[in-house]
Amino acid sequence: MSLIRGAIPVVPTVFNDEHELDCAGQRRVVDFLVDARSAAICAMANYSEQFSLTDTERDVVVETTIDQAAGRIPVCVATSHYSARVAAERSRRAQEQGAALVMLMPPFVGASVTVDERGVVEYFTRVAEAIDIPIMIQDAPMSPTPLSAELLARLARTIPHVQYAKIEVAHAADKIRRVHQMAGEDMPGLYDGEEAVTLIPDLLAGAQGTMSSSMIPEILAEAIRLFHDGERDAAQGVWEDALPLIQFENRQCGLRATKILLKEGGIIGSDATRSPMRTVHPDTRVQLIELAKRKNALILRWA
Amino acid sequence: MSLIRGAIPVVPTVFNDEHELDCAGQRRVVDFLVDARSAAICAMANYSEQFSLTDTERDVVVETTIDQAAGRIPVCVATSHYSARVAAERSRRAQEQGAALVMLMPPFVGASVTVDERGVVEYFTRVAEAIDIPIMIQDAPMSPTPLSAELLARLARTIPHVQYAKIEVAHAADKIRRVHQMAGEDMPGLYDGEEAVTLIPDLLAGAQGTMSSSMIPEILAEAIRLFHDGERDAAQGVWEDALPLIQFENRQCGLRATKILLKEGGIIGSDATRSPMRTVHPDTRVQLIELAKRKNALILRWA
Repeated sequence: MSLIRGAIPVVPTVFNDEHELDCAGQRRVVDFLVDARSAAICAMANYSEQFSLTDTERDVVVETTIDQAAGRIPVCVATSHYSARVAAERSRRAQEQGAALVMLMPPFVGASVTVDERGVVEYFTRVAEAIDIPIMIQDAPMSPTPLSAELLARLARTIPHVQYAKIEVAHAADKIRRVHQMAGEDMPGLYDGEEAVTLIPDLLAGAQGTMSSSMIPEILAEAIRLFHDGERDAAQGVWEDALPLIQFENRQCGLRATKILLKEGGIIGSDATRSPMRTVHPDTRVQLIELAKRKNALILRWA
Repeated sequence: MSLIRGAIPVVPTVFNDEHELDCAGQRRVVDFLVDARSAAICAMANYSEQFSLTDTERDVVVETTIDQAAGRIPVCVATSHYSARVAAERSRRAQEQGAALVMLMPPFVGASVTVDERGVVEYFTRVAEAIDIPIMIQDAPMSPTPLSAELLARLARTIPHVQYAKIEVAHAADKIRRVHQMAGEDMPGLYDGEEAVTLIPDLLAGAQGTMSSSMIPEILAEAIRLFHDGERDAAQGVWEDALPLIQFENRQCGLRATKILLKEGGIIGSDATRSPMRTVHPDTRVQLIELAKRKNALILRWA
């Protein structure tokens, strides 16, 4: 598979108002993301509320997502689990279901159980042994396990499967630049995350694209295409124009922004998130929709 | 059910050397814990490596543990999950399997996703609505979600199911005392945890007992019995005599101490923990076994 470059939106897990899986809604979201020129899509990430699902539900959503993608677009599946054994099983299963790559955070439990460097290397080695597809390492503040730029570069050099990293920590551009310099061609697929709130600095540091939410994939795809085509001013302009909306998502709504706009745009029937995740305040909801309308987001026009 | 008072050891999840579930070993551990005069036992806690299991494996271990306990002793099942819906389902399932109570941490994900007070109240309310058995709230550093003494007392006052709390944070005695003073009879079942490394101060503060590991349940049971019988000096003596071993477990081994001694004592065949949890250094292992022999721990003599 050639290197994925562009916007890789995280697919939300769609629930109905009873908080059960809505597979028909899930399929419509996949169609929207294909039409929005996404480079790939990612299921079971944290913005998919993976932490609110049972193992069985995970399996159903992944199956549905890959089936609907139907080879039109590569699907990344997040397979994080503390246990290397279970993470390897989940990754193997994702490959069998048709995933093009898997994404994992370094192992941790809660705020207190971390893993040392030897353990992290062993973990990704065990996962790699179970699969033939590439691995994206997710470097996010959710994990208290330390993941230095040096360790990321070492994992890329020593485990051929490790070809991608999603870096969404404070000062992401600095870390992306350092990994890019140290790992070079061993880590071709550097991405940022966090809704693309630092996209241009991250692209300038060596990122190939962004693993964002599913809110404005068409705008992010356009900014990234322009950037890689050498039209940096135009890329910067597209991104800066979207930034108030991205920043509103990042600071006011989190993963709920995409669901609210998917519902407002008629793509899904419910924007439910599972308790204890709270719905946003009605005022925030109104402000978000207004902002998305002003930016002419496809999510409101697609259906 | 009358109030549980005494030592509630956490049952380790027993693996073979291939890191698969060892249900025969699981059953022998339950028998040992019954013979060790445990007041109850707890499956699926963090010292059960719940974070290393699939949903299916959870179910098998709980089923096996309760089946082997066979009504001889109450079984607590830890049912933590970020989603209130899934936590309620797990708790309902545990009740159906025969659990006498369930234990849950407040909801969180990793180091960064916390839940506010309204969310915590809603979470335990949803779990309570699904079951008829008591709830023990686990207050541990693993969860980054704040859980003040005031909130613990409020949960006990407003949700009748909340009758137990396991408090294993820094300065546990202070927090136990404050909850005891604020909640009174609404929270009769205060426990400490953390291997009983602060047992006597915690009992003096109002704890009914300890939810410890399965390393020296007979010694902890004896110390607690003496304490509640008014023989405080004797209780203090029993605990102080065991403290070097408890402290070695707490600071050098964690959950691996019980497995090492269960294997050394011939109760189980393997002390495997799933990667990325590392085995202890051979020197540490030798020191642990030597210390347990000096303290004449039942775990080395029972088989």
